[in-house]
Amino acid sequence: MADHPSGSEFDIISKYFRPLSEGSDEALGLTDDAALLSVPEGHQLVVTTDAIVAGVHFLETLSPEDIAYKVVGVNLSDLAAMGARPHAVFLAAQFSPGVAEDWIASFAAGLKSALAPSGAKLLGGDTVSTPGPMAFTITALGFVRAGRALTRAGAREGDLVLATGTIGDGALGLAVLQGDFDGLDAAARDHLARRYARPEPRWEFAQELVKRGLAHAAVDVSDGLVADLGHICEASGVSAIIEAEQVQLSAAARAVLMQAPERLGDVLTGGDDYELVFTAAESALSELEDLAATMSLPLSVIGRIEPMNPCNGPRVQVLDTNGLPMRLRASGYRHL
Amino acid sequence: MADHPSGSEFDIISKYFRPLSEGSDEALGLTDDAALLSVPEGHQLVVTTDAIVAGVHFLETLSPEDIAYKVVGVNLSDLAAMGARPHAVFLAAQFSPGVAEDWIASFAAGLKSALAPSGAKLLGGDTVSTPGPMAFTITALGFVRAGRALTRAGAREGDLVLATGTIGDGALGLAVLQGDFDGLDAAARDHLARRYARPEPRWEFAQELVKRGLAHAAVDVSDGLVADLGHICEASGVSAIIEAEQVQLSAAARAVLMQAPERLGDVLTGGDDYELVFTAAESALSELEDLAATMSLPLSVIGRIEPMNPCNGPRVQVLDTNGLPMRLRASGYRHL
Repeated sequence: MADHPSGSEFDIISKYFRPLSEGSDEALGLTDDAALLSVPEGHQLVVTTDAIVAGVHFLETLSPEDIAYKVVGVNLSDLAAMGARPHAVFLAAQFSPGVAEDWIASFAAGLKSALAPSGAKLLGGDTVSTPGPMAFTITALGFVRAGRALTRAGAREGDLVLATGTIGDGALGLAVLQGDFDGLDAAARDHLARRYARPEPRWEFAQELVKRGLAHAAVDVSDGLVADLGHICEASGVSAIIEAEQVQLSAAARAVLMQAPERLGDVLTGGDDYELVFTAAESALSELEDLAATMSLPLSVIGRIEPMNPCNGPRVQVLDTNGLPMRLRASGYRHL
Repeated sequence: MADHPSGSEFDIISKYFRPLSEGSDEALGLTDDAALLSVPEGHQLVVTTDAIVAGVHFLETLSPEDIAYKVVGVNLSDLAAMGARPHAVFLAAQFSPGVAEDWIASFAAGLKSALAPSGAKLLGGDTVSTPGPMAFTITALGFVRAGRALTRAGAREGDLVLATGTIGDGALGLAVLQGDFDGLDAAARDHLARRYARPEPRWEFAQELVKRGLAHAAVDVSDGLVADLGHICEASGVSAIIEAEQVQLSAAARAVLMQAPERLGDVLTGGDDYELVFTAAESALSELEDLAATMSLPLSVIGRIEPMNPCNGPRVQVLDTNGLPMRLRASGYRHL
C-alpha cells in the first residue's frame, strides 16, 4: 500500500514505529505482511477499532503527543469497558504529504507514553499519505478470561449505577482548549485540558471487576454519561436514574460550575471522559469501595437501575438536587 | 466517537453493517464497545491493517462495491501471505458528510461479496465523517496453525520462486481505468479493470501450503512483483533471479504487450495483483503443481533463489528472453 517515494514509508516505520513493538516476536519486526499473536489459554480476544480525524474528533492545535495519546486512550478505554487487558495496537496513520519528521517523532513519543502503563505494544499498521486532514485509526486487541467479559447487556433492576473518577472534565477540557472559561485559574484550565487530551482508561480497575465478578454491565464514557448509560439500558432492557449531585466532579469542574452553572448539561452529556460506568448489586458495594480505595481511584454511586417502562422503552433520567427530572439537550454529545 | 447528528451512526450501522456480522455472537450485535472472539485451540492469530484513501489508493471513479471489495481483498491477501484463514474484519470508514445512503448501501454490498468466499465476518468498526477524501481502514484477523505461519524470512539458496495466477493485470487494469489502451477490445479492458478492482486473495491455496509445509517464504504481490520478492530477499538474506518470459500473463495483458511492449516494466513492477509469490524446494514442485491443478489455479515457476552477493546485499534481478538483466524503473510501484 505504499504511496510514498520509494523507501520513505519503511524509513519512518523503522525509525519511529518499530521501537514501539519493543522487540516482540509477534510483530515480526513490522517487516512482514501481518503480525502473529498467541492468545493465552483460557482467554478470549477483545477487539475494537476507533478512527479520529483532525478537526472532527480532535483539535488540530493539540500537540502530536496528545493526539497519539488520545487515540490510544480512546481504544484502550473500549477494551477496559469489556474488562480486557490491553495487549497490542495496530495503527493506520494518514499523514499529510508534507508532515515534518519532528511531528512524526513526537507522535511516536505520544504512542509510547500511552502504551507504557498497560505494557501494550504496537504490533503493526500502515502509514499512508492523504490530501485531507490527518486521521488515525487504532485497532486495539486485549485478552479477557473466557466467558468473563463485561458487556452492556446484564444490568438488572435494583442495581446500583457507579462511575469511576470524575465526570465532565473531558467536555470542559475541550471548551478550555477552544478558549472558554478564561476567568478560570491556570491550574484548573490545565487540569481540564489534560483530561481531554490524555484519557486514562480504567482497564486495571475493570480487570478486577472481571476477576471478582462484581459488575453486571459496563461501558466507558465516550459519548457522554447519559448517552453511554443509555447504551447499557438499551442492551439490558432497563431504565436508569442518575442523581446529578452524586456525580463526582473534579475541583476544576466545580470551579467552572460556580462561574457557569449552565454548564452542568455539558458535564452530564459531554463525553470524552473515558471513565467506567457500570452497574452492580448493592451487596457488592463495600467490596467495590475497598477495591477502589486500594487503587486510589475515586468511585461513586451515581444512580440506580429501574424497570423499563414498557411505553417509553429504555430511558435515562437525571434528577436534580430537588429530585426533579432535569431537561438535557436531546443530543448531548458532540466532538468539537 | 460519534460526530453525527444523534442516532444516524447507529442507523447506518444497524441497517447496512450489522447484517455483515451474520448473527455471529462474537460481534455482540455491533452494539458493544468491542468484539469478543475465541481463537481455536492450537492456532495463532494473524492480524493486518491497511488503509486506503480516495484519490491516493483507489480511483474515486470506482463504484462503491469495488472500493469495498478492494479494501477487503487487500487485507485478506495479507492474511493469505501468512497462510491464515480469514476470520473477521473490522472497518473504520471515513465518509463524506453528504454521502448518499445509496452509496453506503452499495459499499456494504461490496463488503458482503468480498467476505463471502472465505466466510469472514464484519465484527466491528467505526463510522466517522471527514471533510477530506473518503478513506477506509480494514483490520483483518485470521487463524493459522500454531508455529506454521508463512513469513518472508525462510527463502533458501536453490529454492524455486513461484507465483500463482497472472501478474501485471492490476497495474494494467489501473491504466485501463485511467483511459489507456483504448485500442484494446472491451472484454480485455473489462478483464484488466476487474482484476484491479476486485482482487481475489489466495488464502485457500496458502492454507494448503501451510498444511503441507511446502513453502519456505511467501509474500503477496501488492507493491509489485519485483519489490515484493525483494521483501522476501531482504528478510531471508538472499537474492533472486526472475526470468521475465516465465511470468504468467493473462490473455488481456498479452494483448496490451503486443500493442505496447514497453509496458512490460509495469507488469513486473506495477503491483495490485494480490497473487502469492513464494519460494519452495525443487523437490516440492510436482506436489505444488498437482495442488494448483486441483484448485484450478495457474501456478508458474518464475525464477530461483541465489546466494546474496555480500557487496550488493539482497537483490532481485530480472532476465529477459536472452538471459540478459533488464533495467527496470528504480521505483516500480505506485498507487494511482
